[in-house]
Amino acid sequence: MSGAGPPRGRTPEREARGASDRPQACGDRPGEFGLIARHFQRPPRSPDVRVGIGDDGAVVAPAPGTEYVISVDMLVEGRHFAAGADPVWIGHKALAVNLSDLAAMGARPRFVLLAGALPAPDAAWLGAFMEGFDALAARYDVELIGGDTTRGPRTLCVTAIGDLPAGSALTRAGAGPGDAIYVSGTLGDAALALAAADGRVSVDAALLPPLQRRLDAPEPRVALGQALRGIASSALDVSDGLTGDLGHVLAASRAGATIDLAAIPCSDALRKLMRGPHRGVALACLLSGGDDYELCFTAAPAMRERIAALAATLQLLLTPIGTITAAPGLAVRDETARPLATLPRAFDHFA
Amino acid sequence: MSGAGPPRGRTPEREARGASDRPQACGDRPGEFGLIARHFQRPPRSPDVRVGIGDDGAVVAPAPGTEYVISVDMLVEGRHFAAGADPVWIGHKALAVNLSDLAAMGARPRFVLLAGALPAPDAAWLGAFMEGFDALAARYDVELIGGDTTRGPRTLCVTAIGDLPAGSALTRAGAGPGDAIYVSGTLGDAALALAAADGRVSVDAALLPPLQRRLDAPEPRVALGQALRGIASSALDVSDGLTGDLGHVLAASRAGATIDLAAIPCSDALRKLMRGPHRGVALACLLSGGDDYELCFTAAPAMRERIAALAATLQLLLTPIGTITAAPGLAVRDETARPLATLPRAFDHFA
Repeated sequence: MSGAGPPRGRTPEREARGASDRPQACGDRPGEFGLIARHFQRPPRSPDVRVGIGDDGAVVAPAPGTEYVISVDMLVEGRHFAAGADPVWIGHKALAVNLSDLAAMGARPRFVLLAGALPAPDAAWLGAFMEGFDALAARYDVELIGGDTTRGPRTLCVTAIGDLPAGSALTRAGAGPGDAIYVSGTLGDAALALAAADGRVSVDAALLPPLQRRLDAPEPRVALGQALRGIASSALDVSDGLTGDLGHVLAASRAGATIDLAAIPCSDALRKLMRGPHRGVALACLLSGGDDYELCFTAAPAMRERIAALAATLQLLLTPIGTITAAPGLAVRDETARPLATLPRAFDHFA
Repeated sequence: MSGAGPPRGRTPEREARGASDRPQACGDRPGEFGLIARHFQRPPRSPDVRVGIGDDGAVVAPAPGTEYVISVDMLVEGRHFAAGADPVWIGHKALAVNLSDLAAMGARPRFVLLAGALPAPDAAWLGAFMEGFDALAARYDVELIGGDTTRGPRTLCVTAIGDLPAGSALTRAGAGPGDAIYVSGTLGDAALALAAADGRVSVDAALLPPLQRRLDAPEPRVALGQALRGIASSALDVSDGLTGDLGHVLAASRAGATIDLAAIPCSDALRKLMRGPHRGVALACLLSGGDDYELCFTAAPAMRERIAALAATLQLLLTPIGTITAAPGLAVRDETARPLATLPRAFDHFA
């Protein structure tokens, strides 16, 4: 964008700015792409990374006896984040949703690749994005090992790789009749922030910031996911709404479930709405609100003590909300133990 | 998009349509998203895939003594393919560019994840896209293990994973003075197809189809890449143009190179243009045209016989075009052995 650049001689120093298999082509001159590429520049950190950023592909060495868990998520401007949203939080969330997937499998996050389309080589935007991305990556010791950048409508695609002892992955398929159903943290606040922003409910202004933070900066339950290996019989993250996501567990496990509305943990703000004229919206937030990124897992009754101890260790709510049944179907009992006649719909990107 | 769907009861059969960590949410009703998700539906095939499509992440088991190579590429409508382009070829190319990256590292392609944004749940478009994608995947026994779909400007992001014996990856850093520089196949035809389409040159209509095919349906050099392990001292794929990409090898290897224009293999169509009034365009196609996806590699002189044998086995041109030098800098000698004064610029997504 900014001038024709210097003569085409290259130096290893300049080259090292290369961000990925393609954009490195542009690391060889100090144009705006050079500025962008610099945001990705970093030497390999883990000894398991044999080749990091700056070649056609990254090379990683799995430890003996481990398996890799791989997840990919795409975030699109105007759909997953607003055009004017703070890029620091977009960077956080782009990584968080993938770490949440790894957590739901019980994996330890290890490596990440970042592909992005940007409308222009906006170094300020990308710098802020990488600030949020890197801060979360550093907390969980996740290493950026490759990527791709191109021009296009703002879109971020993150591929995350975790590892775990062979055979220990938590899937959606292991829930059995009699298992208790748990969720971590509280549900519905991210959806409530959206509902408040859309004017569907009014929420006391003082209560809004923590709700908004749940939407903007979800906290992946990384430690919980790993700790649940050997404890949970199934797990997933609540990204599209509790009833829809729990439905995946039931389908994969060929089972049913009964859950108790009153047991589902939620914020005071949401609990208050449940008792007022906006109960319908509150119910939808709680049962089918996406973007919470809490874990929903099942465990045999014998695991109750271990789960309580885990909650204390992690300082994280782990709440039993219902039971897996042999009979198929998902029933939600209201506060008077009567089944809800209809459940709110799960989020559908194409609905 | 099409109606509200049936009651919310789920069956394992319906659930099995789930395409990925997110879109499965939509496999539970026969709407248009159900149609889309069906395109991804497939049971795990390789015994190394412990958990395939349909959970929060895929789980793969690396074979002892192997390392994984991971690459990601993003393709954007209007930038990497035209809005009206045949989706079969887009599907082919989205995978091909990633397999080319794996080939350049010497890896055997194993697994792939596909994330895509689509403006609408267009089952016909996606069906054709997957036809091209799957046909190439089948040829190289690559297994789709996960993905993500969302609504947005048409964008495809492919993550490819390959494996190779530990320590055998071909990087950009191993070229040494005296090594010969080779390229596979011919260079410049994809760029020539673009130049002809843009009206920068006129090409005999009878010669156009093979040029266009080079642009639309590049052939990743998968067998060659793996065969070069233990032979090549460095390798990469020519995706942004020969001189720019070779520059990455020189930078990473802290070396220079001299290449001979007359030695660079190209099609008759391009060779003819080199001798006419459009020599400038032809030179640019040959030296800095992207999208060829041939391999450029270096090898010690002692490897000459083995490389000739490999060319015969693979029925693929492997042509020496120059030599690595200790002195830095890239010199291109023209047909009269005089260095070209200026080199065409490499492709830059943000230029």
